[in-house]
Amino acid sequence: MPESLFNRQFNINEQQNLLTVMQARRDVRGNRFSDKPIESADIDTILEAANCAPSVGFSQPWEFVLVNNPETKQQVVNSFHQVNQQAKQFNEGKQTEYAKLKLEGIQEAPVNIAVFYRPSKMPVLGQSSMPETGRYSVVCAIQNMWLMARALNIGMGWVSILQANEIKTLLNAPDDAELIAYLCLGHVKEFLEQPELEKLKWEKKKPIKSCVILDSY
Amino acid sequence: MPESLFNRQFNINEQQNLLTVMQARRDVRGNRFSDKPIESADIDTILEAANCAPSVGFSQPWEFVLVNNPETKQQVVNSFHQVNQQAKQFNEGKQTEYAKLKLEGIQEAPVNIAVFYRPSKMPVLGQSSMPETGRYSVVCAIQNMWLMARALNIGMGWVSILQANEIKTLLNAPDDAELIAYLCLGHVKEFLEQPELEKLKWEKKKPIKSCVILDSY
Repeated sequence: MPESLFNRQFNINEQQNLLTVMQARRDVRGNRFSDKPIESADIDTILEAANCAPSVGFSQPWEFVLVNNPETKQQVVNSFHQVNQQAKQFNEGKQTEYAKLKLEGIQEAPVNIAVFYRPSKMPVLGQSSMPETGRYSVVCAIQNMWLMARALNIGMGWVSILQANEIKTLLNAPDDAELIAYLCLGHVKEFLEQPELEKLKWEKKKPIKSCVILDSY
Repeated sequence: MPESLFNRQFNINEQQNLLTVMQARRDVRGNRFSDKPIESADIDTILEAANCAPSVGFSQPWEFVLVNNPETKQQVVNSFHQVNQQAKQFNEGKQTEYAKLKLEGIQEAPVNIAVFYRPSKMPVLGQSSMPETGRYSVVCAIQNMWLMARALNIGMGWVSILQANEIKTLLNAPDDAELIAYLCLGHVKEFLEQPELEKLKWEKKKPIKSCVILDSY
């Protein structure tokens, strides 16, 4: 029996533990994954974490395709390379750095999960004025997965250098499904102390004060 | 000094703690908030949680407006009522139930936070093929806030029955800012054992098996 959640109060150690998981979470790429397989119980826990995410009108509009077939993975890699070829929008110095980055881990990660948004066929409470909250619900589920994976000492990376519709076709997804994210999961050789793009000085960490406004802009 | 995050391994108690926070998190409305104020240290912790969320190309494209002004809150309430009047898309039985639901907690919550997406003026690594990943980064930050708030025994609700552009104007947000979410935070009289819409049988909890596909649809 799971403990009752009713009015469950968390203590300072549990609060600190949560913040540490958030701070220690990384976006993991193919240069960090080890080939140790993921236990199926861990996959179940990660999916359980996804499935208790918030969703607009309790619509739970998420679907998860566990991609294990090596041929399918290779097709996703091909799609990545095709899109990545076109990523020439950085200035000259950054283009050289960009070429050195490992930006996906599709083959290296033992588990890939394509996450889709399946809109409800019925009206959803709270969604009519902000239709994008359906997609946002799926993203909340993805963030739960990311944190749960990290707590299980499993790395996760979100590959966005893809054409969503190409992946949708590859996975034979129905017309009304929309790809939100393509995720790579695996044990890692190491978790970095800082996000890789911070460490490489690609972007600086923003101080929280620069992002907070009191009452009105 | 914070402990080193480098290769931090979490144990089974810490893993279970995270899952419990996720399972105990609720979308809290005005009928549950108490009037106990939120300590500013707790607000800081919730914003710190937001600021360590993942973001596409480490772009950290989030901004948080802490709304305390009672007049502004009243204007947001007015906007809610205007939009809610139009929410007539449910069938007859559900319309009666809908009218009974408390769907926001703008005045009851001591803290409101409007969360905006501020797109980068420069190209962002990984965003050109999936532009919506900028907004999704902001949603990851919101989910971190939701979990951190719950661990601090603080309730949070996401109000989506609003016109985003109206709130943007009210808060004097710049042209390129986009409202992603309007959040209400406060201590609660109680956290419910189940999500309110599940308890009221508005929607059923989906078993995870119904959302998981192996390899291909």
